[in-house]
Amino acid sequence: MTREKRYERLKDLLAERIAQGVYRPGDRLPSVRQWCREQGVSMTTAQASFAALEADGLIKARPRSGYFVAEARPAAPAPRVSRPEQRPVRVSRWEQVQSLVTGGEARHGLAQGMPDLRAPTLRPLRRLLATHQRDSASATFGYDRLAGDPALRQQITHLMSQGGALRQADDIIVTTGAQEALAIALRILCQPGDVIAVDSPAFYGAMQMLEARGLQALEIPTDAQRGISLEALELALERWPVKAILITPTCNNPLGYSMPEERKRALLALARRHDVAIIEDDVYGDLAYDAPRPRLLASEDSDGRVLTCSSFSKTLLPGLRLGWLAPGRYRDRALHEKYVSTGCSATLAQAAVAEFIVRGHHARHLAAMRRQYRRQAGRMRCWVQQAFPAGTRVSDPRGGFMLWVELPEAFDSLALNVHLQEHGLGVAPGPLFSASGKYGHCLRLNFSSPMSDSIETAVRTIGRLAGEQLQRREPRASMPA
Amino acid sequence: MTREKRYERLKDLLAERIAQGVYRPGDRLPSVRQWCREQGVSMTTAQASFAALEADGLIKARPRSGYFVAEARPAAPAPRVSRPEQRPVRVSRWEQVQSLVTGGEARHGLAQGMPDLRAPTLRPLRRLLATHQRDSASATFGYDRLAGDPALRQQITHLMSQGGALRQADDIIVTTGAQEALAIALRILCQPGDVIAVDSPAFYGAMQMLEARGLQALEIPTDAQRGISLEALELALERWPVKAILITPTCNNPLGYSMPEERKRALLALARRHDVAIIEDDVYGDLAYDAPRPRLLASEDSDGRVLTCSSFSKTLLPGLRLGWLAPGRYRDRALHEKYVSTGCSATLAQAAVAEFIVRGHHARHLAAMRRQYRRQAGRMRCWVQQAFPAGTRVSDPRGGFMLWVELPEAFDSLALNVHLQEHGLGVAPGPLFSASGKYGHCLRLNFSSPMSDSIETAVRTIGRLAGEQLQRREPRASMPA
Repeated sequence: MTREKRYERLKDLLAERIAQGVYRPGDRLPSVRQWCREQGVSMTTAQASFAALEADGLIKARPRSGYFVAEARPAAPAPRVSRPEQRPVRVSRWEQVQSLVTGGEARHGLAQGMPDLRAPTLRPLRRLLATHQRDSASATFGYDRLAGDPALRQQITHLMSQGGALRQADDIIVTTGAQEALAIALRILCQPGDVIAVDSPAFYGAMQMLEARGLQALEIPTDAQRGISLEALELALERWPVKAILITPTCNNPLGYSMPEERKRALLALARRHDVAIIEDDVYGDLAYDAPRPRLLASEDSDGRVLTCSSFSKTLLPGLRLGWLAPGRYRDRALHEKYVSTGCSATLAQAAVAEFIVRGHHARHLAAMRRQYRRQAGRMRCWVQQAFPAGTRVSDPRGGFMLWVELPEAFDSLALNVHLQEHGLGVAPGPLFSASGKYGHCLRLNFSSPMSDSIETAVRTIGRLAGEQLQRREPRASMPA
Repeated sequence: MTREKRYERLKDLLAERIAQGVYRPGDRLPSVRQWCREQGVSMTTAQASFAALEADGLIKARPRSGYFVAEARPAAPAPRVSRPEQRPVRVSRWEQVQSLVTGGEARHGLAQGMPDLRAPTLRPLRRLLATHQRDSASATFGYDRLAGDPALRQQITHLMSQGGALRQADDIIVTTGAQEALAIALRILCQPGDVIAVDSPAFYGAMQMLEARGLQALEIPTDAQRGISLEALELALERWPVKAILITPTCNNPLGYSMPEERKRALLALARRHDVAIIEDDVYGDLAYDAPRPRLLASEDSDGRVLTCSSFSKTLLPGLRLGWLAPGRYRDRALHEKYVSTGCSATLAQAAVAEFIVRGHHARHLAAMRRQYRRQAGRMRCWVQQAFPAGTRVSDPRGGFMLWVELPEAFDSLALNVHLQEHGLGVAPGPLFSASGKYGHCLRLNFSSPMSDSIETAVRTIGRLAGEQLQRREPRASMPA
């Protein structure tokens, strides 16, 4: 291992222990000498790691006392419970979503939902994909079974069982990304004009699906740590003719929370009482930082009313376009919708991914990515806390690679994004995550790429520009809504 | 070249010249000796070829006169002009389509829409796919541009220009097969309950889309050689609130005709007069037997009302799931529908196919497949003519790899299919191609695989069983409708 690698490794190790609370703000760290012994590195290497952590603001040196975990400012509070429009509304904002999903790649990919494509643990997948393309029998290039490759569906049931949901391969339909799974679920459950209850903020892609299908979104207040408000949801179910609940209960995008298990159970009981179906978006669930991963809503579903949507786009490679739908009791209609939506899914990537899982590569890859994303969450939170204006709140993700940042109310994330373009930067502005265009003062940051000096500089630049905008904008009364 | 290859080649060459009408029924063929000289083969080889053609029933030996093109029975007449239900109806028949598209592979693939996956001219594509999977930069595994790889879209404009339609790369949206292109076109043009005029018989996948979207199909009488009846279409447009025309004017599936150019122009004029959009399914258009390929409807479209749907599923490999939509003036809405349907399309296959075209492999492959399919159409028509019951009519395809067979009215193709299963065989039964379940006495045969003795045996078995069914069923009055 080169010196650079040793120094990086030790720095990451320390950051991880701090992020996990092994050392808490104000705690004294073991001495540099102790670290040298524990990790078998030279004093030079250890000192370089400590200096880098100090530069990051994670630790602080006190003369003749050693290093302490920084507590310069209190941990950023979590975002407030959201207060969306509590009536069904039509979704808009396609122009902004379009510029996000079709726009050129802003540097560092802070805006989009891209995982780390360069992870070394993905290499075996690249090899398997090439081998299958070259060596598979010609017949495998034909139309596949409509529901997908049986071997892959089998492996997907294993993944779902880790979330406590026991399914058969026949209960799974392979789709063109989770996007198609969500689209199919919405199409079989709803007719134009129907009302769908959603957590809020929520994934903008799902919001756009509601718009395209002519559905109305009923946004439910959501707590940044415990998820959708069951009390508000119950009121909504009593008041409005809700056709389905569309929700991301585990490793939520954009808020990063996982609903506690007892709240998931209560949610399901509520849905049962009101006889409403639930579309469970679990696309980040396999990237939960804690093992075992949180239970799926589907794990408690006794009457097939939960339609679980997921994919390999966040865990492996989005360009494969491989997702799945576990449609519960709606299987027959889901299969028909799959047929008329895209026919079967691409064949060879399915076989390659199935083999990647069978050979244990997938488990190793997931373990590595969970560690990486947890570590990076801590570092990006730290930078946001240091560089963003006073009054900023930030999420504390339990999985995935997204950070939700809530600035003071006067802040305008759409205006900031225009400004950021000049710097070759971009964020996902808050209003995309709301059917009614709320969250103008919020933004989402992606932290999937291995953290680097230039990403740190980018985050600090965003924070500085946000602060400058706020100073220019005060007092708020003079601003357009 | 081995003797087998030489003998096969000469046999195919002769069959092709007969199919193309170089030698017509009753004509005397040049002598075996002349063929030996012309083709540089031995007498043994030439005689083997002639014997095989005679066994196929294509030629007949007359003692001391030589070989003659067979005219044992007159050429089978074309199927009759269809007489579908001329009012809007809801589509059904999903069970039968499902068993066709999800069912196990019956021997010889006579039922499904699969091209020849073993064509040697596809080998460079396999290599390119493997190379791209292995060597592409990681970034190419991310989310692609929503509209698709610009290099591929550029190549698609070149393909479309061969059909006379001049488009820019920005006018093209890459989709997950033509299935997604058709689904997007229908979703942006129609609301549930709307009436769509269709040629009849028509592709069952499109019929199922109408069903899933809650649309009504208005089936228009269609001539097996000239296509949709413009007179009947005009009456329908006057009488019903038709929202769009969904049509396969070139290398029609299942009938194989290409509408004459002046009729395509008249169709477009009619659509313009009634201000109706046209969804043009061109999925077999690049497999027209005659060069240059027939013009696209889109080639005459001056106001962007034609939405052309196509794919590489019939020309290359269905398992790639690569199609495209040229949505005319509906581009913005099509792009939104694409986003909410599946997001972007799989990335690497796009790059590999673009390179396959750029390097000239695609043109070579298309030329080879057109020759092969034309030759095979002739042979399968010949077998059907010989082995199917008297009164059978058969299409004369101008492209693609599908044969439409119309038997006497008393025949029941669904019942035959049940019977064929015992023999490990299957056909696409006629009612799948009609919204109102017409064409029970028709069936479609796929002739994409290189013709072999065992395929011949299969076709003859189907013909024999059909004949036996008809004998059992007469008189028809005793049959349920």
